[in-house]
Amino acid sequence: MAHLLVTGSIGIDSVDAPTGSRRDCLGGAATYFALAAGKLCSVRLVGVVGDDFPAEFVEILTSGRIDITGLEIRSGSKTFRWHGRYSQDMNSRVTLDVQLNVLAEQGPTIPKAFRNSEYVFLANNDPALQLEFLDQLKRPKLVVCDTMDLWIEHHRNNLLKVLGRVDGLVINDSEARHLSGKDNLLTAAKCISQLGPRYVVIKKGEHGVILYADYADYADQDVLVLPAYLTETVVDPTGAGDSFAGGLMGYLTQQEASRDDLAAWRAGLVHATVLASHTVERFSVDGLVGLDDEKLKCRLDAYRKMIQP
Amino acid sequence: MAHLLVTGSIGIDSVDAPTGSRRDCLGGAATYFALAAGKLCSVRLVGVVGDDFPAEFVEILTSGRIDITGLEIRSGSKTFRWHGRYSQDMNSRVTLDVQLNVLAEQGPTIPKAFRNSEYVFLANNDPALQLEFLDQLKRPKLVVCDTMDLWIEHHRNNLLKVLGRVDGLVINDSEARHLSGKDNLLTAAKCISQLGPRYVVIKKGEHGVILYADYADYADQDVLVLPAYLTETVVDPTGAGDSFAGGLMGYLTQQEASRDDLAAWRAGLVHATVLASHTVERFSVDGLVGLDDEKLKCRLDAYRKMIQP
Repeated sequence: MAHLLVTGSIGIDSVDAPTGSRRDCLGGAATYFALAAGKLCSVRLVGVVGDDFPAEFVEILTSGRIDITGLEIRSGSKTFRWHGRYSQDMNSRVTLDVQLNVLAEQGPTIPKAFRNSEYVFLANNDPALQLEFLDQLKRPKLVVCDTMDLWIEHHRNNLLKVLGRVDGLVINDSEARHLSGKDNLLTAAKCISQLGPRYVVIKKGEHGVILYADYADYADQDVLVLPAYLTETVVDPTGAGDSFAGGLMGYLTQQEASRDDLAAWRAGLVHATVLASHTVERFSVDGLVGLDDEKLKCRLDAYRKMIQP
Repeated sequence: MAHLLVTGSIGIDSVDAPTGSRRDCLGGAATYFALAAGKLCSVRLVGVVGDDFPAEFVEILTSGRIDITGLEIRSGSKTFRWHGRYSQDMNSRVTLDVQLNVLAEQGPTIPKAFRNSEYVFLANNDPALQLEFLDQLKRPKLVVCDTMDLWIEHHRNNLLKVLGRVDGLVINDSEARHLSGKDNLLTAAKCISQLGPRYVVIKKGEHGVILYADYADYADQDVLVLPAYLTETVVDPTGAGDSFAGGLMGYLTQQEASRDDLAAWRAGLVHATVLASHTVERFSVDGLVGLDDEKLKCRLDAYRKMIQP
C-alpha cells in the first residue's frame, strides 16, 4: 500500500460568513488536505503547532487514516491563527487577522519513517521550506505542490526551483494568472507547465477546475475541464481548495498511479471535486469529519450524472 | 422535417476589444441564433431592419439554411445599432452607444407560412412583443425564450406572463439572480422554474452553463452542469449567448425532441457550447459563417473528450 505525505499549515481558524460565525475551529491547508485524502488512502501528516493546540483537534486528526507521527507540538510556541470574512455571495473573502506564530519559526522535520513516502503534497508554504522538504525525501513517485501570491511576488526564484522539481502544481485561477502573466487560463497553464510541472491544475472555485497535462502524444486529450458540484448548501468555503487537492492526491495514491497515468488524474479530479463539495457544506472540517464511505460514493455518483451530457 | 422559428433583433454592430476593432458588422441576437441553429436544422427568421441594411448582410443570412421570408426591410427606417467595448480580460463589456431605431417602432409580423412552426425561440425582446408573437403561433411543440435586465426591472408583469407560456428560459447568471432574487444559481433556477418554464438554462459565459429541469421523476438527474469549451482564441464574445441558444434549439429541432425529452436537452447543450465557441473565435458572425459540418463534428468530439473524466 502506498503512502501519501503532506506538509503544510495546521491552524486555528475563525470565520465570519453570511451563514454564521465560528471561533477557534480547526483549520489549515494540511489539515483539510489530510482529512480529505484520508477518505481514500493512508496519510502521513507533517506540520508544527504550538502548545495551545487543543487536544480535541489532535483527536480529530487521528480519527481518520492519518498518521500524526510528523505532527510537532512545539512547547512555548503558539499555533498559526487565521480570521476571515466571506462576502454575501461567498465568492470573495478578506483576511481580518493572521498570526503566523509557530509558522514563522523553524519548519518541522520529516520523520525518518516518512521519508520513503511514494506520494507527496507540499501544501502552500515558503518555497525555501518546500525545497528543504524535497531534500529530505527518498525518490518519491509523484510530487505535487501548491503556492500563493506572496511567494509568486516575493520569492519567485525559490518558487521556480520548486516548480522544476515537481510533477504537478495545484493553484487557483488568480494565482495562475499572476505566476504566468497570462489572462487566458489555457495559455497560463501551458506557460506554467513549461516551468516544470507536467500536470497543471487550475482551481476556479465555484466554477470548477482545469487540468492541463503536457502529453505530446495525446493532442486533444491533454485538457480536462470540470464544473464544481452544484449545491444550494454553501456554508463555509474555507479549505475547499485544500480538500480538493487532498481528494486528487488521495485518489492517485489509492490507485498507486504512475507519473504517466493521465486517466488516474482525470478520475482523481472527480474525487477532488466531490471532497471539496463536502467541505463547503459545513463549517470548518465538519463536512469531512462527518463523511462516510456511503455518503462519498453517493455524491460521486450524483456528480458523475450531473456532468454527463 | 420540423421548423425552428426565431424572432428577435437583427442589427449593425461596432466592437472594440483588446484583439482589435470592427465597425458596422452584422449583429443582433436573432442573427447569431439563426446562423448557429442553421448548422443543425432549417430556420425561419422573423425580424425587422431599416433600408440602410446592407445587401451583403442579407446574403450572409441566406447563405445557410435560413428562410428570410420573415425579414422585413422597412422603408424609411434605420437598422438597430450597437457599439460596445470589451475589458482586457474579455469578461465584461460596456455599451458605448445604442440606437434602437426600427426596434422602437412596430414589431414585425410572423408570415402565415411560419405560424405552424413546431419549435420557437423568442430572443430577448420587450415581453409585450414576445406575447404578441406567441398569440400568432399555432400550438408549437416547444417554446423557449430569452430576456434581459431591462424587462426584469421595468416590465416584470408582462415578463411573468411570457414565462407562464414557455417551456424553457435561456438566461445569463446575473439575469437569473436578478429575476429570482437569489444568489445561489441552483436556488435561482428552481425559483424561475416555478414561474413557468420547465427547463431553465443559466449561461455563465466562460464558466459554462447550468441546466435545471423540473422533472419530479428524475431526482438527481435533473441538473446538468457543463463548462465552456476551453480555448486560447477569444477574439470577440459578442453573440456567444445567442449562438449558444441557437445551437440548443437547432439540435432540439433536428431531433424533433418532445417536451419530455431531457436527454435531447443534455445533448443539445453540448451543441450549444460548441457553436458558441466558434462565435467567440472570430469577429462578428465570421466564426459561424466559416463553420462547415466537418469542423463542427471535430469540435464536438474534442469538447466531449475535454469534459469526460
